[in-house]
Amino acid sequence: MALSLPEVPPTAGLLDRYRHVRAVSEALCAPLSKEDMVVQSMPDVSPTKWHLAHVSWFFETLVLREHVAEYRPLDPAYEVLFNSYYNSIGEQFPRSRRGLLSRPGVDEVLEYRARVDAHMHRLLERGVDDALAKVVEVGLHHEMQHQELLLMDILHVLAQNPLAPAYLDEQLPRGQSPAALEFEGIAGGLVEIGHAGDGFCFDNEGPRHKVWLDDFALGRRLVTNGEYLEFIVDGGYERPLLWLSDGFAWVRQEHVAAPAYWRKQRGEWFEFGLHGLAPVDPALPVCHLSYYEADAFATWAGARLPTEAEWEHASAGANSRGTYMSSLRLHPRPADLEDRLQQLFGDVWEWTQSAYAPYPGFAPASGALGEYNGKFMANQLVLRGGACVTPPGHVRGSYRNFYYPHQRWMFSGLRLARGA
Amino acid sequence: MALSLPEVPPTAGLLDRYRHVRAVSEALCAPLSKEDMVVQSMPDVSPTKWHLAHVSWFFETLVLREHVAEYRPLDPAYEVLFNSYYNSIGEQFPRSRRGLLSRPGVDEVLEYRARVDAHMHRLLERGVDDALAKVVEVGLHHEMQHQELLLMDILHVLAQNPLAPAYLDEQLPRGQSPAALEFEGIAGGLVEIGHAGDGFCFDNEGPRHKVWLDDFALGRRLVTNGEYLEFIVDGGYERPLLWLSDGFAWVRQEHVAAPAYWRKQRGEWFEFGLHGLAPVDPALPVCHLSYYEADAFATWAGARLPTEAEWEHASAGANSRGTYMSSLRLHPRPADLEDRLQQLFGDVWEWTQSAYAPYPGFAPASGALGEYNGKFMANQLVLRGGACVTPPGHVRGSYRNFYYPHQRWMFSGLRLARGA
Amino acid sequence: MALSLPEVPPTAGLLDRYRHVRAVSEALCAPLSKEDMVVQSMPDVSPTKWHLAHVSWFFETLVLREHVAEYRPLDPAYEVLFNSYYNSIGEQFPRSRRGLLSRPGVDEVLEYRARVDAHMHRLLERGVDDALAKVVEVGLHHEMQHQELLLMDILHVLAQNPLAPAYLDEQLPRGQSPAALEFEGIAGGLVEIGHAGDGFCFDNEGPRHKVWLDDFALGRRLVTNGEYLEFIVDGGYERPLLWLSDGFAWVRQEHVAAPAYWRKQRGEWFEFGLHGLAPVDPALPVCHLSYYEADAFATWAGARLPTEAEWEHASAGANSRGTYMSSLRLHPRPADLEDRLQQLFGDVWEWTQSAYAPYPGFAPASGALGEYNGKFMANQLVLRGGACVTPPGHVRGSYRNFYYPHQRWMFSGLRLARGA
Amino acid sequence: MALSLPEVPPTAGLLDRYRHVRAVSEALCAPLSKEDMVVQSMPDVSPTKWHLAHVSWFFETLVLREHVAEYRPLDPAYEVLFNSYYNSIGEQFPRSRRGLLSRPGVDEVLEYRARVDAHMHRLLERGVDDALAKVVEVGLHHEMQHQELLLMDILHVLAQNPLAPAYLDEQLPRGQSPAALEFEGIAGGLVEIGHAGDGFCFDNEGPRHKVWLDDFALGRRLVTNGEYLEFIVDGGYERPLLWLSDGFAWVRQEHVAAPAYWRKQRGEWFEFGLHGLAPVDPALPVCHLSYYEADAFATWAGARLPTEAEWEHASAGANSRGTYMSSLRLHPRPADLEDRLQQLFGDVWEWTQSAYAPYPGFAPASGALGEYNGKFMANQLVLRGGACVTPPGHVRGSYRNFYYPHQRWMFSGLRLARGA
Repeated sequence: MALSLPEVPPTAGLLDRYRHVRAVSEALCAPLSKEDMVVQSMPDVSPTKWHLAHVSWFFETLVLREHVAEYRPLDPAYEVLFNSYYNSIGEQFPRSRRGLLSRPGVDEVLEYRARVDAHMHRLLERGVDDALAKVVEVGLHHEMQHQELLLMDILHVLAQNPLAPAYLDEQLPRGQSPAALEFEGIAGGLVEIGHAGDGFCFDNEGPRHKVWLDDFALGRRLVTNGEYLEFIVDGGYERPLLWLSDGFAWVRQEHVAAPAYWRKQRGEWFEFGLHGLAPVDPALPVCHLSYYEADAFATWAGARLPTEAEWEHASAGANSRGTYMSSLRLHPRPADLEDRLQQLFGDVWEWTQSAYAPYPGFAPASGALGEYNGKFMANQLVLRGGACVTPPGHVRGSYRNFYYPHQRWMFSGLRLARGA
Repeated sequence: MALSLPEVPPTAGLLDRYRHVRAVSEALCAPLSKEDMVVQSMPDVSPTKWHLAHVSWFFETLVLREHVAEYRPLDPAYEVLFNSYYNSIGEQFPRSRRGLLSRPGVDEVLEYRARVDAHMHRLLERGVDDALAKVVEVGLHHEMQHQELLLMDILHVLAQNPLAPAYLDEQLPRGQSPAALEFEGIAGGLVEIGHAGDGFCFDNEGPRHKVWLDDFALGRRLVTNGEYLEFIVDGGYERPLLWLSDGFAWVRQEHVAAPAYWRKQRGEWFEFGLHGLAPVDPALPVCHLSYYEADAFATWAGARLPTEAEWEHASAGANSRGTYMSSLRLHPRPADLEDRLQQLFGDVWEWTQSAYAPYPGFAPASGALGEYNGKFMANQLVLRGGACVTPPGHVRGSYRNFYYPHQRWMFSGLRLARGA
Repeated sequence: MALSLPEVPPTAGLLDRYRHVRAVSEALCAPLSKEDMVVQSMPDVSPTKWHLAHVSWFFETLVLREHVAEYRPLDPAYEVLFNSYYNSIGEQFPRSRRGLLSRPGVDEVLEYRARVDAHMHRLLERGVDDALAKVVEVGLHHEMQHQELLLMDILHVLAQNPLAPAYLDEQLPRGQSPAALEFEGIAGGLVEIGHAGDGFCFDNEGPRHKVWLDDFALGRRLVTNGEYLEFIVDGGYERPLLWLSDGFAWVRQEHVAAPAYWRKQRGEWFEFGLHGLAPVDPALPVCHLSYYEADAFATWAGARLPTEAEWEHASAGANSRGTYMSSLRLHPRPADLEDRLQQLFGDVWEWTQSAYAPYPGFAPASGALGEYNGKFMANQLVLRGGACVTPPGHVRGSYRNFYYPHQRWMFSGLRLARGA
Repeated sequence: MALSLPEVPPTAGLLDRYRHVRAVSEALCAPLSKEDMVVQSMPDVSPTKWHLAHVSWFFETLVLREHVAEYRPLDPAYEVLFNSYYNSIGEQFPRSRRGLLSRPGVDEVLEYRARVDAHMHRLLERGVDDALAKVVEVGLHHEMQHQELLLMDILHVLAQNPLAPAYLDEQLPRGQSPAALEFEGIAGGLVEIGHAGDGFCFDNEGPRHKVWLDDFALGRRLVTNGEYLEFIVDGGYERPLLWLSDGFAWVRQEHVAAPAYWRKQRGEWFEFGLHGLAPVDPALPVCHLSYYEADAFATWAGARLPTEAEWEHASAGANSRGTYMSSLRLHPRPADLEDRLQQLFGDVWEWTQSAYAPYPGFAPASGALGEYNGKFMANQLVLRGGACVTPPGHVRGSYRNFYYPHQRWMFSGLRLARGA
């Protein structure tokens, strides 16, 4: 079935935005069979139907159970089955075993969603106070994150299949390779980063705080497949001196020789994506890199990765044009070089060299939402800017995404940086 | 949906038996959702839809491709996807990853079956020579084995689910515990075992050969849950001197404290089965034991397990009454003590102490069928007699089933033996 | 330091034999440094000093503690540290961690031995009753087993070292390759196997019992390195149809391409042994094979492995000439074809296709000695005949050695068999 | 044998300092047997004799081979055997297998050291240019690091032994518990961190650079065993909300319930250390904590860990008194509260919340020394201040030690921090 996503005016109220976000999640399942929606292809991946259920569990647990007296859960077991990692709420069914659960099936999960929606609609029609509105807002952004996860995860599931089934039938045209990479110098100094203003943000984006930055330069666009191919051809994956020690150990142990979804067939590189299998297009941003690969490429290129403070400082006032989920092109686009500094937002998440750590003065949100971000502040690195599978309006200049350095099933690429 | 299985007169011809076996496989899926049919809960388990496809692949590969000129495969990739372990045919998709394949979906697999069936029907209507008839016969017995595997596997899948979903809704009545176990003495001597006569058998059942047996005695019935509970209560799982060394290491490493599907809830033992979760019924034969458990129980009981030669010798002329798949009671029944030696066939497979090894003079079948049995003759032990999930007419006195000593997702129990 | 082993007249009494066996164990350490004697190179291997201590623990625990009132243990912790696997005696320090114990050091272990010896000498001088003499006898045979283990283990330790240090400096002369293999026909019938007579045997060698054997034939000598090289050159390790299923999985997983201690250097095969590294000598019996390799070779050669009953029946009355530990040539010798059926004893252990299982009517010894053999009767296969590292006089026609099918650090080779 | 360490005047020249550092390494082995010096108790640990050899390899490879024409290596294989991780130099024997090498033995390693020393003495007597002097200087600091590693490692080795053998016989007196913890406020602002001046430092300590710090406060002393016991008693290890997500997973998987070398015996906590096993002394700084434990304790205490910039800024001008290796008390001492901010140096390494990352403008040293630090800048966290096993004069305010968050065999503890 073809994919088409509902739209909502940016000025819509909470109820309309609730309806919209919920509808998008279900619309994303249109190209999928029930069988697709059960499979868990690695512990990091969740089945599609688990995503659909978990985001409903979020509203059920944090809104309905606490604020709607007449609400009755569909099945008390769901409290455990669809709790992702909230210890303050209770036990969780083990993450790595989500794919073993054939029941509740897709139909039952949709029924669960409908029941939660019915109550949420009624509640939002009645109106909610600011505190509760804020929780609902978190729930909407939470569901948007899971829309992206759903797409990342289903790509990973489909990629296990030698039949190489495409999520979207539409094949992508070849792009035109951009001109040679140039750097844009950016003035440093004592700057501020972190979320400012009244708009929504997650707790990990604040507090806004001072950071000293030396002058630096950023690549004007993302690194391309074509450039990454040069790294491969130059023996990039066989040269330990280009790599972090842990990175090279990972390369050896996992027999890594290319980005996650690249496959060599009869001497030619192909890339598998949500639009299916196609020859690697040198014009496109390279995607599905681990931190180790991004770092090794930067070393090879005589550059480095930006820090998150550099990225955020540079992005202030930058154009937020880019490829998002709403484009129905679920693959990054080539640079067009219209802006001096482009592709900061959308297309692919950009690895930074910054460990995901609390900002000075950071305090987690109170209650269960305090587990949302803070407890993951170890062993991960920050990525910035969003990707082609990110819902539009979800990402910001201060938005901090984070992954372990070996992970690469998300839409991750890189932009080079260097000293001024 | 309720389960009902088609029947076929025992005198039916090859085509009718083909139709019947194929129909039974599909009928067994009636109680299952598409989601159920995708999940693989451990490497030993295959998804239901894989079973449905693989048994068709068998006919496609060994009959249609070789003997039907006009046959065109539905998808050439299926040759690899649905090859279980036949190296002489070609590559295989890795067994432990079968659950990662959401495509082909259930509908496509059924379409694949229909296409194979159409050609097989036409072929069998035309008539086949004896050699080909024998291959078709193997294919039918092969599919019957997979019907049992399908039920074993779906039980394992459903058992992972904390919702404890039942395959069959009908709950089982409590049984009446049989009288204390007595032994039946059996005269040994220079006997013959192995398949005799013209009927169908697998290659591993022959050649028929001489074996010397001392006089021995067999338990007149299977060991019951009630007796096994006494072993547990007596500290059976904590006493290393009752166990084989490898067995006790397995108990410790896997934290084993009861048969596979037993669960203690608020101090009481429950058993999960195809009829759902119910209190352990002491009258029923104990089921889902590993070899290690069967051996430790026998040691505790001051007895031993029979050899396969003893079992086969004793079963000659015995009543083949017992619970089979056709009864739609997919759980063993209590003994009724009408016969002096009963429950030899059906109900639960009986562990023997005999390693699965070639009989003297054994030669594997030629061609791909040579991989059917012979290459597994290491590290496994023989079980005899069939179970409540075995298709009727599938098992024989000479039938050799085989599993690794730690496995217990099959319907395995035990009968005691001792010297005369 | 050079190796020289004390001798004892075969007619010596128990005390003299005790002195002799104990002296041999220590003499075997002469070529080793203290550092050599600490290392454990895999869980199956024990450090040399652990062997020296454990065999003393055996006498201490089963003789001195029970029968010598004035005996005081050197250190009560040794009861746990040097208990190998006797649950009836108590807890054991984990086997896989023996190499982590630097203390007690070699000197302390030798002091421990001296203390045990002093008490044992006094006890044996006083004289012991028949029951206790039998336990001492078991202790001596137990220590002889550990002498062989010590040599197997130190070979494995030294083999980890890229410096390829030799246990013995003496290099071996090249042998003369024997003539093409011939088979010796042997008449079957209703024969008896198992230990007979009054001499010492382990409990697993009995009871003597009847077995039916069809007529068969055995290779007149062991399979040679030269023959095994042909198997390798013929792609033996890449052809799944030659292998048991578990065997080929082992080959793939462990990247096996030759016997355990073979190494290819600049296109030539070398073999590492107790005499150091030398080019593979085609004349010598092939050694350090797993069961899987022995079985695959036999299949490739159009033959099979013998059963243990065939081997034992054929060995009755055979010449027991062969290479044993006492020769100080700790590597198998080529066949000389003087006898029609030769190399049955000494040189290399011969894999049989027989699972290690209890003989009919087997009952383990009582007390702690009951754990000596019986609890290992699962998952292992029987090897017969002894090897060049076996103490002379230790092996018999009824002697059953046993290993897991993937193991090959013992001196294991094969003899072919086939039907008559 | 008792431990006594040579001394050297701080004003000594390069040759005398070379002699001194080398002599200390060997003196540290006095309490050890040869057997102790071979064992590797986990992949992170190296055998004592490997440390002795590797530090010599460093001088051999980076000084003698390149600058002493007449130098002949003792054994060319040592180049691989004793290379730790320098890919620019060549292959390395795998780290996790160092404990499998009984040869070269301790005597041969000492001979190797003597040979390297003889050439180094001659070279240093002749005099070296500044560039080479700098390499020798790195070699001395490298060997000092390995002196600390040698002590950490031998503690881990001895801790595996149920005999609990002490490295040093001298037992430690009980300390007097310090008064309740107070915090010292420290003014932030735009400060500089990183090494300044002409003294020796590692490449990772620079460049000196600006950092903005908000005002903050540091605990005036280290956290004590007594305080940590309160955390344990309060259920610290069972409360997931106190832990980072990865930390709690580690606690569960490794069954962690106390610092690394604590053991509960008959209800009382004991601590194993280089002075043997003794009851936990509440007055002493808690030691052998992972980052996860340090972070969880800080959360429980309503505080946080300092950043490395905060620590370094606060340490400027602080007293460097503390317990170092030279004291022959190889265990931390209690605080005495003479200074407002004390125990910054020596006693235990202090976990910071700062990921080990390159400072702005960091460039690794050229040549092989470029692999010394930079390639480890992922997945690790910075610890500051040195420990009781650190050679005196080795640590500095700018010194960055680094470990993975789960590691705790180093002498690691914590100091609390909080906002102003």
